[in-house]
Amino acid sequence: MSKDARLPSWRPGTTRDALTTFLDEVQEVPVERRVACFDNDGTLWCERPTYVQLDFFLDALRRRVAIDAAVAARPELAALLDGDRATIDAIGLPRIAMALAGLFEGLTPEEFGVEVRTFLGGASHPTLDRPTTTTVYQPMLELIAALRGLEFTVGIVTGGGTEFVRAISNDLYGVPAELVVGTPIAYHLTRGGDGAPEVRRGADLVGVPNEGSAKITNIQSQLGRRPILAAGNSSGDREMLEWTGGGAMPSLALLVDHDDAEREHAYTGRAETLGEPEPIGEVAARLGWTVVSIARDWATVFPDPSAPDATRRA
Amino acid sequence: MSKDARLPSWRPGTTRDALTTFLDEVQEVPVERRVACFDNDGTLWCERPTYVQLDFFLDALRRRVAIDAAVAARPELAALLDGDRATIDAIGLPRIAMALAGLFEGLTPEEFGVEVRTFLGGASHPTLDRPTTTTVYQPMLELIAALRGLEFTVGIVTGGGTEFVRAISNDLYGVPAELVVGTPIAYHLTRGGDGAPEVRRGADLVGVPNEGSAKITNIQSQLGRRPILAAGNSSGDREMLEWTGGGAMPSLALLVDHDDAEREHAYTGRAETLGEPEPIGEVAARLGWTVVSIARDWATVFPDPSAPDATRRA
Repeated sequence: MSKDARLPSWRPGTTRDALTTFLDEVQEVPVERRVACFDNDGTLWCERPTYVQLDFFLDALRRRVAIDAAVAARPELAALLDGDRATIDAIGLPRIAMALAGLFEGLTPEEFGVEVRTFLGGASHPTLDRPTTTTVYQPMLELIAALRGLEFTVGIVTGGGTEFVRAISNDLYGVPAELVVGTPIAYHLTRGGDGAPEVRRGADLVGVPNEGSAKITNIQSQLGRRPILAAGNSSGDREMLEWTGGGAMPSLALLVDHDDAEREHAYTGRAETLGEPEPIGEVAARLGWTVVSIARDWATVFPDPSAPDATRRA
Repeated sequence: MSKDARLPSWRPGTTRDALTTFLDEVQEVPVERRVACFDNDGTLWCERPTYVQLDFFLDALRRRVAIDAAVAARPELAALLDGDRATIDAIGLPRIAMALAGLFEGLTPEEFGVEVRTFLGGASHPTLDRPTTTTVYQPMLELIAALRGLEFTVGIVTGGGTEFVRAISNDLYGVPAELVVGTPIAYHLTRGGDGAPEVRRGADLVGVPNEGSAKITNIQSQLGRRPILAAGNSSGDREMLEWTGGGAMPSLALLVDHDDAEREHAYTGRAETLGEPEPIGEVAARLGWTVVSIARDWATVFPDPSAPDATRRA
């Protein structure tokens, strides 16, 4: 397979050269060490103007309020429904996200997955004029396919809810549930009418959101292997990118730079829960990460929505 | 492939019939629902007279004491070194296991894995006169191979330490690290001399030992999918076996009955941390699980240690 055939949506240049060099060199690495971890929002699909998970939660909230107006009395949810930006900022996204997650308390993971897939089956992106499921980045799908062709284990390591991403990870990226490491909701065991155990969603997290240092310890706990390739776009990915590789083998840390206001968005990635002690672009320059410029490096940003497998593994 | 070719070490009878019927019927189940979870100690390999992990810890303890006699002063470890059964029982295996795990505090997971593999590279079973790595059950290796041939995702769900089992799961069973769900040690993030993050073992658990109800919630959190086949041998596997399947699709709950004092051991499985409110054999009869009698159902118990792949995937 020629280099161009592996990554057709990547423009020639230093970034694509770094990828193809890695793909060539990694064939000397033992297969069990071929692990790649990708952030999701802003790395594998569009996260602007709002996170897709927030759109999903908001849709669920509006439908719930239509049935039970009392739900709207909770301050976190009232601020959101009013679009009251100042109050939303004062409360903070993590607390609001937990209030929204509470709307699904008591569902089984399977029931929650159906809710997610039903929403995404009909959702369109608010500005990009395409189905939300086709706001995945075509060049990243190609990179994942190339890695998988080299027997890589490809995981998603996201600040989003684990179950939310699991509901779509196989269809969008070919990534099975066990390779999705996200912010974990607590599960509670109940007994059904027949006495059989059932798992149901709680309203609280296990630990902290999966951002920053937590991404490292959660990769170790859940996946058990350190990645030699990691990709991210925000300060929440910093530690994961710093941890990538290690030792003498080839490794690659990729930082997606959203610099294309024309075709996508132009902004600097920042984790909502972490602040930004050092701008992530400066960390990348200091540590020699490979920066992926959407404007410069990607010939195509999104898949053709009319292609039959536009929302499936490249 | 004929039924006999799939499971050559299983004797004809109702147990093998239950397995082959399941293997036939499951081909109608969507691939993403084909998930199987196996307990390890007493289900995939021999756990008597002592857990292999305990042998490993004891070996490490003796080597440590030879260098630093003060280590032996800790009551949990002194009781163990003295073989003081009454004190060991009074302290309890969970507390002793934590004291032993503390011997490895500060190691990276990779360093710990090397310790495990070095020990097992030279360990012999105390009574079975064979290398410890060949005390895996040949019929179970064949079942795993048959499931994998049907595109099953095969996980190990163990009360043992996650990192201990991960160190050997690929070599013994072809199971990668992310599909090992065990009792998790805490990890701590440190910064090396070059400022790069490092993961190091703590001396405490995250949550509770992976037994009983914890097996269910940990499968959901880490693997994200409910098994349609589960296999265990003790009260610590009860909830996992009860949870298996659900809905209208084929499912199988297997309970290994250690009833072969001649070729292995004869005993009733009981989780050290849970007690036994109802004997597990009675639960199996009441709920219609498939009981695997080692004496009756297995023509061969262990692989031929002289075979080149005796300790690898069947």
